[in-house]
Amino acid sequence: MGADARVPVAVVGATGYVGAELLRWLVPHPNVRVVFTSSDQHQGKSVADVYPFLRGIVDSTLVPHDATAAASKAEIVFLGVPHGTAVPLAEAALTAGRRVIDASADFRLKDPAVYARWYGTHAAPHLLPEAVYGLPELYREAIRRARLIAVPGCYPTGALLGLVPLARAGLLTGSVIIDAKSGTTGAGRGAKVEQLFAEVTENFRPYAIDAHRHGAQMEQELRAAGAEATPLFVPHLLPVSRGILSTMYVSGEAAEADLAAVFEKAWGAEPFVSLRGDGPPPELRDVRGTNRCAIGWRQSRASGQAIVVTAIDNLAKGTSSQAVQCMNLVLGIPETTGLLALPLAP
Amino acid sequence: MGADARVPVAVVGATGYVGAELLRWLVPHPNVRVVFTSSDQHQGKSVADVYPFLRGIVDSTLVPHDATAAASKAEIVFLGVPHGTAVPLAEAALTAGRRVIDASADFRLKDPAVYARWYGTHAAPHLLPEAVYGLPELYREAIRRARLIAVPGCYPTGALLGLVPLARAGLLTGSVIIDAKSGTTGAGRGAKVEQLFAEVTENFRPYAIDAHRHGAQMEQELRAAGAEATPLFVPHLLPVSRGILSTMYVSGEAAEADLAAVFEKAWGAEPFVSLRGDGPPPELRDVRGTNRCAIGWRQSRASGQAIVVTAIDNLAKGTSSQAVQCMNLVLGIPETTGLLALPLAP
Amino acid sequence: MGADARVPVAVVGATGYVGAELLRWLVPHPNVRVVFTSSDQHQGKSVADVYPFLRGIVDSTLVPHDATAAASKAEIVFLGVPHGTAVPLAEAALTAGRRVIDASADFRLKDPAVYARWYGTHAAPHLLPEAVYGLPELYREAIRRARLIAVPGCYPTGALLGLVPLARAGLLTGSVIIDAKSGTTGAGRGAKVEQLFAEVTENFRPYAIDAHRHGAQMEQELRAAGAEATPLFVPHLLPVSRGILSTMYVSGEAAEADLAAVFEKAWGAEPFVSLRGDGPPPELRDVRGTNRCAIGWRQSRASGQAIVVTAIDNLAKGTSSQAVQCMNLVLGIPETTGLLALPLAP
Amino acid sequence: MGADARVPVAVVGATGYVGAELLRWLVPHPNVRVVFTSSDQHQGKSVADVYPFLRGIVDSTLVPHDATAAASKAEIVFLGVPHGTAVPLAEAALTAGRRVIDASADFRLKDPAVYARWYGTHAAPHLLPEAVYGLPELYREAIRRARLIAVPGCYPTGALLGLVPLARAGLLTGSVIIDAKSGTTGAGRGAKVEQLFAEVTENFRPYAIDAHRHGAQMEQELRAAGAEATPLFVPHLLPVSRGILSTMYVSGEAAEADLAAVFEKAWGAEPFVSLRGDGPPPELRDVRGTNRCAIGWRQSRASGQAIVVTAIDNLAKGTSSQAVQCMNLVLGIPETTGLLALPLAP
Repeated sequence: MGADARVPVAVVGATGYVGAELLRWLVPHPNVRVVFTSSDQHQGKSVADVYPFLRGIVDSTLVPHDATAAASKAEIVFLGVPHGTAVPLAEAALTAGRRVIDASADFRLKDPAVYARWYGTHAAPHLLPEAVYGLPELYREAIRRARLIAVPGCYPTGALLGLVPLARAGLLTGSVIIDAKSGTTGAGRGAKVEQLFAEVTENFRPYAIDAHRHGAQMEQELRAAGAEATPLFVPHLLPVSRGILSTMYVSGEAAEADLAAVFEKAWGAEPFVSLRGDGPPPELRDVRGTNRCAIGWRQSRASGQAIVVTAIDNLAKGTSSQAVQCMNLVLGIPETTGLLALPLAP
Repeated sequence: MGADARVPVAVVGATGYVGAELLRWLVPHPNVRVVFTSSDQHQGKSVADVYPFLRGIVDSTLVPHDATAAASKAEIVFLGVPHGTAVPLAEAALTAGRRVIDASADFRLKDPAVYARWYGTHAAPHLLPEAVYGLPELYREAIRRARLIAVPGCYPTGALLGLVPLARAGLLTGSVIIDAKSGTTGAGRGAKVEQLFAEVTENFRPYAIDAHRHGAQMEQELRAAGAEATPLFVPHLLPVSRGILSTMYVSGEAAEADLAAVFEKAWGAEPFVSLRGDGPPPELRDVRGTNRCAIGWRQSRASGQAIVVTAIDNLAKGTSSQAVQCMNLVLGIPETTGLLALPLAP
Repeated sequence: MGADARVPVAVVGATGYVGAELLRWLVPHPNVRVVFTSSDQHQGKSVADVYPFLRGIVDSTLVPHDATAAASKAEIVFLGVPHGTAVPLAEAALTAGRRVIDASADFRLKDPAVYARWYGTHAAPHLLPEAVYGLPELYREAIRRARLIAVPGCYPTGALLGLVPLARAGLLTGSVIIDAKSGTTGAGRGAKVEQLFAEVTENFRPYAIDAHRHGAQMEQELRAAGAEATPLFVPHLLPVSRGILSTMYVSGEAAEADLAAVFEKAWGAEPFVSLRGDGPPPELRDVRGTNRCAIGWRQSRASGQAIVVTAIDNLAKGTSSQAVQCMNLVLGIPETTGLLALPLAP
Repeated sequence: MGADARVPVAVVGATGYVGAELLRWLVPHPNVRVVFTSSDQHQGKSVADVYPFLRGIVDSTLVPHDATAAASKAEIVFLGVPHGTAVPLAEAALTAGRRVIDASADFRLKDPAVYARWYGTHAAPHLLPEAVYGLPELYREAIRRARLIAVPGCYPTGALLGLVPLARAGLLTGSVIIDAKSGTTGAGRGAKVEQLFAEVTENFRPYAIDAHRHGAQMEQELRAAGAEATPLFVPHLLPVSRGILSTMYVSGEAAEADLAAVFEKAWGAEPFVSLRGDGPPPELRDVRGTNRCAIGWRQSRASGQAIVVTAIDNLAKGTSSQAVQCMNLVLGIPETTGLLALPLAP
């Protein structure tokens, strides 16, 4: 390994869907090597015991979560653990002088009071000011320099890439409705009756109507971008494993504004945003397994609404490949390194 | 057969999804017997050649579409054919003195000009005034006496059962958004690349945004019920075979009105409407294979919206079992006869 | 209820997939009424709290499992509980003078030693001799008189209906291979990671190769019917909720025998067996939601094999509607009462 | 382009599932560039008109099929067209001095009489002797030198990788049964009713029992490897888009042989074969989107059978990535170049 110029990275929480997807992007990445993988649930096993298709590809042993141990081996520590449990791990890794890319919700909300409303009292509010919201399309320069990066939630990624351009253009003054539909991996790999195959297949349902934790992130970032409206967020559960499609309704001036110009100005140079305009609307399969976000729109004068549609892969651009995009910025390498996979379609 | 008191009925167009579903409800129905089945595509075969599971259960031969022949054998003629082709069949059956229950779009729109905008010139506009919109919850008494019943489209059934109560209560004055998600059988059984399994599974997409033909029916009936707003209708394609879930957003006074009272007044006595209030929201599986519509709602003061959610089975309450519900009214038998199946869940 | 001539029945274990499916068949059944429903997990709730689509249809409260209480109200006690836990419940109900229809594995195997190999020591081996294997096509007359009926496992039902006719005809002398593919409900409604939607969708896998507990039932009944061979049973998990399709390979004389005559002799008069011969092979959708078994076959001289294919719905003919078929025999009413539903297809 | 050292390649037939999958592997491949894409059906459109997710990634125009034009631009010509139509295209490209990698069935069978039995008279039987069967694990050295490569069918790839080692070891002397289950993309992207989502979801069925064209390839290659038995091949249609799992039953000495040694000898050094032994059996998701084949086995003394299970992705190792593996051999570059993707799981 002496001559291996690849940067060592750690994945704390490697066996959930987020952790496994981090491995899927990190293992073939040309600039890094995974030197640490942990799992409290599967400690002592190898990664390949949990995911047999990784045998011969990633054979590292799973140790218990331990950010200090991770920091002793790796320069960048990814956290793929549940919210609440990321705080002490992040603190330990930061104390050891490492940079942390956290895929949990622990550092996404700036206001400890808002955090408390959804998740309980924050255990390290002093870290919130320096945490950078890991959406490169919004905070690219801050991410480059950040010690602590909070990768956005999957729903907020899809909503914000579609609405921030309108917020910046002063078009979010009327009602803003986010009708989002997600695949099941967004709920993680825990064993729950409501996530059993037989409960989900041939089914579809809304849940947490106007009461989902991700709504707070959306509101935080939309207000930061200039929105005046309080968005209404209604998530639904799709019988698919991956993907979020968000259909968003914006009333007011947006119904007649030059949206092509608005989106071109905001994302015209972005490598991972595909602007569809009023062509074929985005579909989940267009982005499946990729770090891309596809955005389309329509305007309805009769009803006074602009309709914006975005599609992402919740595990990729919605979480893990977005974390790697942040890592590329941190490492100072081309932002698209290791992230140009085509979608698996069909 | 001499002593068989069951009413003879015909199914013109028996091998598409609508026709096969008509058979699924009519064959076990205690008050009728199916005496005529037709299919232009499969003429000469038996029904069981097309649907092997019907062998020994429905063994009638498929003849070409012929409403006069159907009318010579049956008292009630169901039409399960594509729009445009139903008009001459309906005319012939009416001329022969039979009653017609048409599952196509040909007699749903009252205004020939509106029909023409979406489907082309109407071939028998003189019949439009007497056609009754076959949504029993709206037009029960007229259906009892009707010669010609136009079974509503699947999307309008789901939207109207959720919104008509608000329209009647004067609550549809602001924006009305219908974000609907449908299974694939809504598109019929024609061979289309976009409906192939590999194109639909693990996928999800909007289509015909603000441009779907069913929008005109919704607008017609909502205005008839007192709505002032022009609804915005956005359909999506779900990777499920059956079911439509409609998430509807109503701004204005509805955000604070007593919706429980509004729905109770409208549908409290309806045998096929399940009012969920703010309990667990409707899911597709709750109504799968049934003639029921489940309705739930929430109100968001912060965003100024009422959210109404409805779930139906597009082939059942959305089309074929609703046609049978109309038939029960025509026959003067209890409206629920043959229609009380429990959902197939899981 | 005084004038209600319907027989009172109890469902002990009403909220798993088997129990819920029992309700789906029993609630609309004209000759019985469900007077007792229990669930240890959900005790205190109503059935409709667990399955919202049953609100207004089945509103009984869920009490803890208690066969004595069940027996005090009901004449027939259905057991929809896990193996091992059925024995004491069955004993209590029998002691109270009731008849028991058990959907668990506890009374299916005649030999306590065989039971012990797969499930542990049997707690009431004295009951095994009188328990009747609840496959009406094999044991119709014994079922009519039985106090204790052991409903067969889902896999054995599909395998035996396809192979017993050959065994009886002396054709199971060479190798017998049962390659079976099942939907996920066969594994019950427990929360398991391997049954999560995202683990099952777009996936397929064999499991318990030559090591599944249901193999012992198959061997027991095939030998009883005259088979000389030891069958090899390989189950697979399909990404569907319901259904078992078994593809079975029989070498030896069966490759050239008159299978049509063999099956006609065995099942020609059976109301729930559909003989397909060498027509279109059985499909899962042909039997979805029904009490039917479809059987097809082919013969390959070149390879020296007969191929027999059967399809059943694992929750219906594979368990719950078969239990109701047994109940009809016990009650002395027509065997098809309440069991003639058409498949939900599509 | 002058300085572009990448080899120009053509994809004749670029819009079917095989062609699109070829693009998915070829576009990011470091050693080639796609300079020609054709489609008779979509000629004049761009590739991105057919597959919107390729916009900005592959923007080439689709021209009509024309092997001479393809050969004028490319050094290697891939054929992704239906059987029968590949022959003249291959001839033209060979005449122009190019190397041809054909994904159709036209050059897979060595015996024109066998070809005729399944596909009709062969139009260029003189080419059959030089065509090399493009399964690198069997014909690596011949592929390196071949002008004309016939990529194997998807079913034969899965079957042969599991059975050839046994054939070579003299273990295929008794019965050999191939019970294979495939995703729907194996049937191509043509619009067929039987491939509609609503016909496939929640369904499963065998088809072409002992009568599938791919059986001839299996027999040809198994005999070439030393098999004495005539295999019996029974394919089934799974409700998944990608993947073939083959469960194979071998009677005779194989039931007790040292299969681990047999497989290790055959495939121990193969980069794309994962030997699972008697560990967790292969699953479709283990190989989804990859060029890998996973192989597991069990032995049953009681039934006298060895059970061999293989899993491949039918569009990848089953067709298109296997074609690229052949191309790597032709180009003399490392065989794994561009082919090391991890599976998309979940």
